[in-house]
Amino acid sequence: MLAYRLLKPQQPPELQDIPKPSPQSGQLLIKVGGCGLCHTDIAIMGKTKAQLDAWHANSPPFTLGHEIAGWVEQIGSGVVGFRTGEPVAVVPLWGSCGRCAPCRSGNEHICQHMAGEFGAGLGFDGGLAEYIVVPARFAVHMGELDPVLAAPLTDAGLTTYTAIKPALPMLIPGSTAVVIGIGGLGLLAVQFLRNLCAARVIAVDSNEAHLKLAQEHGADNMLRSDGTTAEQIRDITSGAGATFVLDCVGAEATLKTGVAALASQGRLTLVGAAQGTTPFGLHTMPPSAQLSTSFNGGTTNLLEVLELARLKRIQVIEECYPLSRVVEAYKDLEAGKLKGRAVCIPPGASASAQ
Amino acid sequence: MLAYRLLKPQQPPELQDIPKPSPQSGQLLIKVGGCGLCHTDIAIMGKTKAQLDAWHANSPPFTLGHEIAGWVEQIGSGVVGFRTGEPVAVVPLWGSCGRCAPCRSGNEHICQHMAGEFGAGLGFDGGLAEYIVVPARFAVHMGELDPVLAAPLTDAGLTTYTAIKPALPMLIPGSTAVVIGIGGLGLLAVQFLRNLCAARVIAVDSNEAHLKLAQEHGADNMLRSDGTTAEQIRDITSGAGATFVLDCVGAEATLKTGVAALASQGRLTLVGAAQGTTPFGLHTMPPSAQLSTSFNGGTTNLLEVLELARLKRIQVIEECYPLSRVVEAYKDLEAGKLKGRAVCIPPGASASAQ
Amino acid sequence: MLAYRLLKPQQPPELQDIPKPSPQSGQLLIKVGGCGLCHTDIAIMGKTKAQLDAWHANSPPFTLGHEIAGWVEQIGSGVVGFRTGEPVAVVPLWGSCGRCAPCRSGNEHICQHMAGEFGAGLGFDGGLAEYIVVPARFAVHMGELDPVLAAPLTDAGLTTYTAIKPALPMLIPGSTAVVIGIGGLGLLAVQFLRNLCAARVIAVDSNEAHLKLAQEHGADNMLRSDGTTAEQIRDITSGAGATFVLDCVGAEATLKTGVAALASQGRLTLVGAAQGTTPFGLHTMPPSAQLSTSFNGGTTNLLEVLELARLKRIQVIEECYPLSRVVEAYKDLEAGKLKGRAVCIPPGASASAQ
Amino acid sequence: MLAYRLLKPQQPPELQDIPKPSPQSGQLLIKVGGCGLCHTDIAIMGKTKAQLDAWHANSPPFTLGHEIAGWVEQIGSGVVGFRTGEPVAVVPLWGSCGRCAPCRSGNEHICQHMAGEFGAGLGFDGGLAEYIVVPARFAVHMGELDPVLAAPLTDAGLTTYTAIKPALPMLIPGSTAVVIGIGGLGLLAVQFLRNLCAARVIAVDSNEAHLKLAQEHGADNMLRSDGTTAEQIRDITSGAGATFVLDCVGAEATLKTGVAALASQGRLTLVGAAQGTTPFGLHTMPPSAQLSTSFNGGTTNLLEVLELARLKRIQVIEECYPLSRVVEAYKDLEAGKLKGRAVCIPPGASASAQ
Repeated sequence: MLAYRLLKPQQPPELQDIPKPSPQSGQLLIKVGGCGLCHTDIAIMGKTKAQLDAWHANSPPFTLGHEIAGWVEQIGSGVVGFRTGEPVAVVPLWGSCGRCAPCRSGNEHICQHMAGEFGAGLGFDGGLAEYIVVPARFAVHMGELDPVLAAPLTDAGLTTYTAIKPALPMLIPGSTAVVIGIGGLGLLAVQFLRNLCAARVIAVDSNEAHLKLAQEHGADNMLRSDGTTAEQIRDITSGAGATFVLDCVGAEATLKTGVAALASQGRLTLVGAAQGTTPFGLHTMPPSAQLSTSFNGGTTNLLEVLELARLKRIQVIEECYPLSRVVEAYKDLEAGKLKGRAVCIPPGASASAQ
Repeated sequence: MLAYRLLKPQQPPELQDIPKPSPQSGQLLIKVGGCGLCHTDIAIMGKTKAQLDAWHANSPPFTLGHEIAGWVEQIGSGVVGFRTGEPVAVVPLWGSCGRCAPCRSGNEHICQHMAGEFGAGLGFDGGLAEYIVVPARFAVHMGELDPVLAAPLTDAGLTTYTAIKPALPMLIPGSTAVVIGIGGLGLLAVQFLRNLCAARVIAVDSNEAHLKLAQEHGADNMLRSDGTTAEQIRDITSGAGATFVLDCVGAEATLKTGVAALASQGRLTLVGAAQGTTPFGLHTMPPSAQLSTSFNGGTTNLLEVLELARLKRIQVIEECYPLSRVVEAYKDLEAGKLKGRAVCIPPGASASAQ
Repeated sequence: MLAYRLLKPQQPPELQDIPKPSPQSGQLLIKVGGCGLCHTDIAIMGKTKAQLDAWHANSPPFTLGHEIAGWVEQIGSGVVGFRTGEPVAVVPLWGSCGRCAPCRSGNEHICQHMAGEFGAGLGFDGGLAEYIVVPARFAVHMGELDPVLAAPLTDAGLTTYTAIKPALPMLIPGSTAVVIGIGGLGLLAVQFLRNLCAARVIAVDSNEAHLKLAQEHGADNMLRSDGTTAEQIRDITSGAGATFVLDCVGAEATLKTGVAALASQGRLTLVGAAQGTTPFGLHTMPPSAQLSTSFNGGTTNLLEVLELARLKRIQVIEECYPLSRVVEAYKDLEAGKLKGRAVCIPPGASASAQ
Repeated sequence: MLAYRLLKPQQPPELQDIPKPSPQSGQLLIKVGGCGLCHTDIAIMGKTKAQLDAWHANSPPFTLGHEIAGWVEQIGSGVVGFRTGEPVAVVPLWGSCGRCAPCRSGNEHICQHMAGEFGAGLGFDGGLAEYIVVPARFAVHMGELDPVLAAPLTDAGLTTYTAIKPALPMLIPGSTAVVIGIGGLGLLAVQFLRNLCAARVIAVDSNEAHLKLAQEHGADNMLRSDGTTAEQIRDITSGAGATFVLDCVGAEATLKTGVAALASQGRLTLVGAAQGTTPFGLHTMPPSAQLSTSFNGGTTNLLEVLELARLKRIQVIEECYPLSRVVEAYKDLEAGKLKGRAVCIPPGASASAQ
């Protein structure tokens, strides 16, 4: 079968023809329907041997691609709850222990004994191939949702949803949610917020086109970010401030804006990777406010994200490439040419649907 | 190995020597440390062939006993998250699908596609034996808790805890929880309530000795049940009524008392099996009140119950019998001779601990 | 000022010219902007003297109308938190004690010491007048929302929202909410559900036109009610059943359908007044399911309802009448001629806005 | 009546004989039963005129004392929900607006329009007197609890409870709560945690005597704070870390220990005033962890704290002084001579207790 593989650290991956794998006990063989591309993949291609070895899992060679959805092709022994031919999506990170309370309740991303940040396409063979073998506990059902639509939801969608979910009880009518940075995550965040609660949604970005997209996807207010952003948010909220701020950028400046915009007992959640920090203390933030990070998500949340897509409550802007053109797809991603998320489709995938 | 088996419907079970089983893919072989006896077992011994066949699972012969804890003896292929020698407990009901959202989050008792009420000792070979084979997804860890202490918690403890847990957010300081019927479940309920929230706990029973036990385990008020019970509860609560009523009897009379004692927006949960009903309607109950049933529980809740026992916050009164005296143990249970829960211990079990 | 008053039990009310009232300590004088008409008013017009005396409050004569919004005209001494000229809405029921924990947290509808079901237009002078005096604790702010839009939300909106709110934590993506009966409450319920959570929303009614309205307001599935309704709901939900059923009818038949459609741990809430009942017991309903009633709501919830309207997330279909034509408005209501909610507007009200 | 008053900034307060005040509309006159002393009072005695003027409220002269409980002596017009002679306690901070959603639900401490940190004994006449006038909305009922026991709960108790309450849903069995700093707040925190949830409670302090007190009040583990504290917490929790850390010190070192000890998705709440800060960022803390501050509390929470005391679930160690010896009491407080909380009792107070 065709697979796009990282053979050696810091060398361009190659499209190869490799044998179709077989599932062991506890595993599923999944026929890939679509695999999303991610900036993380590009970072992996640039990692040194030492960095890759830190995963403890198998170093290169491995197949890339960690945003994966498809159909169950074959079921390993001892696996419960799956049927051949049904659509499934895959949680990307596989370092959780499977035994602690969070793991047992489908919140593998907060596993108490996480072994590391590896998984499909991250040390293990990933989804840029015709087939992939997946430990059954990392696969979830998704009704009749098209795998091409589902693929990017397994990472960008899951991360954003997981960051928003703990804030929902605060987001009662009359509350305000601010999304800073309307990229892939931010645009999903606007949609999740508009569908999961009745908060006013304010989008903040430096790019007018991004704000226009946010508006089309349901944002109530759009603010060009500048030194007065926090003040503008206070004006819109009659002085109360933001109940929830999702910082999808994570720079020192956006964190500062976010904290300054928070209401009493407001919550700021940081998912952006820009490496900024902000000081936390009794007098550095509004009374009873809170700062949290969020990282990826687990199977319970992925099930919920997929249900939202199945009901057509959210949509991801996508650009599809056949797997044979994966090199071009990564180039377009790196060059900033894409309007949406790139998804690679293996040969024969769409024909096999349902 | 020794096993106490139901060979034919409505015939006395027998202690037999049968081969030690082996775990298949996805299964664990567990060395039994203790197995609790339950009135349900006696009901099963009395079931007709037709009733037993309704389980779809294997009819007799099978080994009895569904309150099981022990140590991992052998691990089937494809099983993740267990280590040989570590203590585990077993959720008794195995009819859940393993694929729906409740199953994936460890709430198997509210599985959306429950196949039936069967499981260990209920159609499948149970825990009144030296070893038992268990699908890994129904086994949970319990730190270094003694299996003899853990066994009865898998059913009586799990059922009671699962019934109480949804009421906890209502049980703020100033609230009142009433437990009707201080038998095995009710006594555990008093302890759970005193440890999980700060509600005033009122115990109701017709038996003075039971009320004394409730008091020793933390009840704040003890009421002999009579026609004025609801009124007495209102007096204790300055007229407000009970925030939560757990009916461990389930007769028409106890339901009537429970409903009459409820506060506005109060919750009555029914776990008792006395087959009573009460009419539900806009004018049959206090404003915004709710009636709920509860049945058994899942792995997430069992983990939590076991943690409570591990911290010694709850205790079960037990009477231990060697497995060889299981017939006598059931006789004592049927005769009402037991003060606590009977637990059978297989030969060699205690020696193998840790 | 003009006021529509019930002078004697079971006699037609009259439009009278009475003196403008003055607020006492702790009260507000509110200039009425709009007052909704309700079938309850017609029931009150038909009550006997004995029935009206049961309110303990002043019997007739009193001004009718309990769905009230307007502007603060004058502030009694000792009142905190209001400013002259700002828009406010009024919670209709005034029998709560003001001292218990629910009252202190704005949940007056579950007051622990409720004195009775009376309030504005229900024993006390109501809103079918140019001005009304209201205890300040029953008035809430509503930003710049038009009182004509707000008025019907204080009863129909508040009741529906209060019934739905406790179910929201269950209504995660993948869940299903069923609304039985798409009248005034049901249509609001569909809108609340679509804006407050991501559940699939199924509307059930015997009237095709009502179902069409439900669809226009966001229902995902529309079912003509018949003997197979519960079965159809199970089909739509792949067998799981409904996570939440809101019964806005309350007949024995709708309760039966609702219970039969419930998922394990599902919740049925009854707000419909058709006086039906259904038996509650361990074997009369799905495992761990719950039945609850709900009645009216408090100031905290009314604030939230008004915020939803202010953000234009919900809308009420209205037909406006000048207060001088109130007799005609009630006739149209009784004759079933109205497509939406009738709202009476006192002379000069719109001119005074803001 | 006797009152201990700050007459001029930075001058020793004086015990004076002043006229008994009268309640205006919306106010209560409260006969003081007990008034707790607090280090904040000493800070106020040292404030400059400019600092005191920042309160916008009346500068000195005013009566000191902000931990107040007593009996309703007289009720101003327009006040609902109080009866003469009944015991009440007073929320200390009075700067909230009374109109926003948090205020309307009894969470005045997160008021959206807080005017400043003033209140009883903080610009307004406080409780070190025989009588005090209090806006009715800041007084709460407390059943038959002794005001001497209740007084310190209005500040130390309320602050600690309010900091813990948002963490309770996380503190399921198997979770771990750490209290850093076992002074007045920390010792209350240990008791609240043991009564409100089933988490393991770990007390951390540098003082062996404090740890002993923590143990006597229910702590499961006691740790002398040093460079290995976070590591020890991880050992006790089998590597998982702390679900919740309450930092009652707030120094840079304790914050560092707290963050290092947190579990994935754990929550650290800071109430200690030592002015430390810690950097917040994606890579400075465990995955999905959160940092929050907490400050004082509102009437809803105070009601709950008082109910805990009424059920005798918590106790405050107290040392009582007659009001005539208030100067000596503050001296003992400043000198660190007190083992518990100092409470001043006005002449005749205990006699009036029902």
